[in-house]
Amino acid sequence: MGDEKVNIHRGLVGIHFDRTQTTYINGKQGILEYRGYSIHDLAEKSTFEETAYLLLHGNLPNKAQLDEFDKILRSSRKIPSKVLKIIETIKSAHPMDVLRTAVSALSAFDKETDDKSYEATLRKGIRLTAQVPTIVMSHNAIRQNKKPVTPNPELSHAANFLYMLDGSIPPENTTKLMDKDFILHADHGSNASAFAARVCAGTQADLHSAITTGISVLSGPSHGGAAENVMKMVKEVRSPEKAKDYVTNLLRNKERVMGFGHRVYKAEDPRAGHLKEGVEALGKEKGDPGWYEILVAVMDAMKPYQRRGIHVNVDFFAGVIYHLLGIPTDLFVPIFAIGRIPGWTIQVLEQYEHNILLRPLLHYTGEHEKQYISIEKR
Amino acid sequence: MGDEKVNIHRGLVGIHFDRTQTTYINGKQGILEYRGYSIHDLAEKSTFEETAYLLLHGNLPNKAQLDEFDKILRSSRKIPSKVLKIIETIKSAHPMDVLRTAVSALSAFDKETDDKSYEATLRKGIRLTAQVPTIVMSHNAIRQNKKPVTPNPELSHAANFLYMLDGSIPPENTTKLMDKDFILHADHGSNASAFAARVCAGTQADLHSAITTGISVLSGPSHGGAAENVMKMVKEVRSPEKAKDYVTNLLRNKERVMGFGHRVYKAEDPRAGHLKEGVEALGKEKGDPGWYEILVAVMDAMKPYQRRGIHVNVDFFAGVIYHLLGIPTDLFVPIFAIGRIPGWTIQVLEQYEHNILLRPLLHYTGEHEKQYISIEKR
Repeated sequence: MGDEKVNIHRGLVGIHFDRTQTTYINGKQGILEYRGYSIHDLAEKSTFEETAYLLLHGNLPNKAQLDEFDKILRSSRKIPSKVLKIIETIKSAHPMDVLRTAVSALSAFDKETDDKSYEATLRKGIRLTAQVPTIVMSHNAIRQNKKPVTPNPELSHAANFLYMLDGSIPPENTTKLMDKDFILHADHGSNASAFAARVCAGTQADLHSAITTGISVLSGPSHGGAAENVMKMVKEVRSPEKAKDYVTNLLRNKERVMGFGHRVYKAEDPRAGHLKEGVEALGKEKGDPGWYEILVAVMDAMKPYQRRGIHVNVDFFAGVIYHLLGIPTDLFVPIFAIGRIPGWTIQVLEQYEHNILLRPLLHYTGEHEKQYISIEKR
Repeated sequence: MGDEKVNIHRGLVGIHFDRTQTTYINGKQGILEYRGYSIHDLAEKSTFEETAYLLLHGNLPNKAQLDEFDKILRSSRKIPSKVLKIIETIKSAHPMDVLRTAVSALSAFDKETDDKSYEATLRKGIRLTAQVPTIVMSHNAIRQNKKPVTPNPELSHAANFLYMLDGSIPPENTTKLMDKDFILHADHGSNASAFAARVCAGTQADLHSAITTGISVLSGPSHGGAAENVMKMVKEVRSPEKAKDYVTNLLRNKERVMGFGHRVYKAEDPRAGHLKEGVEALGKEKGDPGWYEILVAVMDAMKPYQRRGIHVNVDFFAGVIYHLLGIPTDLFVPIFAIGRIPGWTIQVLEQYEHNILLRPLLHYTGEHEKQYISIEKR
């Protein structure tokens, strides 16, 4: 029994599990579109608020629609004092563990937790988009024994995020760069975290369960951890001249060079270039261009491997940007989560609309019909 | 672009994503084996502790091994007072939301949270197996403004679970029935929650993230909710004589009869019979045999549909058992979770051992190359 020949799709590589109208990824040509709009247009011309609206509603908003959407976001940023208390209780944990716990706990205070209708789920997704930065930044203050900065409703999503870091209003150019980073992370099809959120929604679980799932899965180093690992790498490289030897050494030991390669992209990650410009400008502005120079040197050293489809990905530049903005390294993954809330939400909504239990199979290769021997005779 | 013909595997039905040496399910013949041992032998002859050991270690323990394993379980039941405080803070939430939050929070207090080695993960899985019943039962006390019952290290896993319900030591026969229920729920291959836990582990996330994921996914009514829904149904049916009309009505309205049918089993769920005997005996003992009679009448009414592969599943009998044991209905899904911790843990361990990112694809069917029009012109 069970000996029939079966096809094993390890990693589910190349398996389509459903249709989507949200995000288009063409890995061979390096194309990324949200709702049919090029990521390049969105990164250069849109805002995170507008892009979140686009993902969630399917179309670009007009002025009145965007204002209304933004108003809801700005007024939803505060989190219940009881959730702040929970954060305080576990403040020494990793920020992703705290974020996961706090989002899970928010379900106890959301008046629509159990309502899985399309409209209620959309509203919850918008609230979570607004609340998640507050969780991350409040925890960052609390663990330093500081009072959390109160969210500022005068500021945009990106500006408020940076504002909550130290209570000072950020300059326009860094706000724009942060905003762009959130746009670039807003959705990415059925990556592991969004896919798991869909598996969760497939059982008709609610949005807080699905987003908690997304955060759990994103916490894995091979999903959300690349920006952090790139930062570690550039610190180890130390100077542009040492990049080539460093890379050669890694590859000789069959280790991965961080920030390169992607399950889907075999061409350059179309998101990467937007952050490349940003990190160069930010480095100059901060009088600290060395990190950028190391990144370029690592890219140069990696050029020979592009033929094999190993290209730089979005995380390659993100880490140094966060570092230059004074953000602690262990907040790099939570920043990814902040950007991704609209994406997870729309994936869950798509799953609900045409729902099915996601339940693949494992092929059993062990023994059968073993005799149960009583414990005295073992 | 993107117009190529693609095969969509909705629900990933019939897709094998990996090999396993843990649990064998033959849906056509109604066979279930853990590690090669028939579920029938385990349900009748084993204990939950022994079965958990079998799943986690791959072999049945001898006396010394089982004693050592059981000793660790019994001594790991207490949860940190700070986690009890978190439970208190969100006590009015659904028990699954509280369980998800509390398990997530436990990561802040486990000394091996970050250690993803096989041995550390195994130890964490054993600790969580011991802690999860304490979370569920402490919350149940706290929400009634009662002091949680302290876990009793003199009692077995199942006996302690029932003991924590009201502080009285349960009789042997109900303990055995609860124990059997936990055995029957201990693993079930790549069901949605275990599959999602594997997706989580596939990113190299830690066990607390993966178990939090499992709990999130189990909370969906079409995964963990069947026992609760069966209880609701038998209450609606009210008497055996009304079962046939009730079932006919449901089917006429194209609604599902709860506790029947399974994605994998097209024969009778091999777990169901073990609880059938239990519910009959327990009903008689409690002087309340009516529920069992309704269940039998519903089964009789469903007989004509067995040809189509629609058979009774394990959840059909579980709900009435819990009800007869005086367990509140909203704890039925958490009980499933209590049984499933060893299963989720071994699935995560298998995933780690031969790891790969689980990242299938979505087929984009929306528009392309839409022109970005500035907001003033929309």
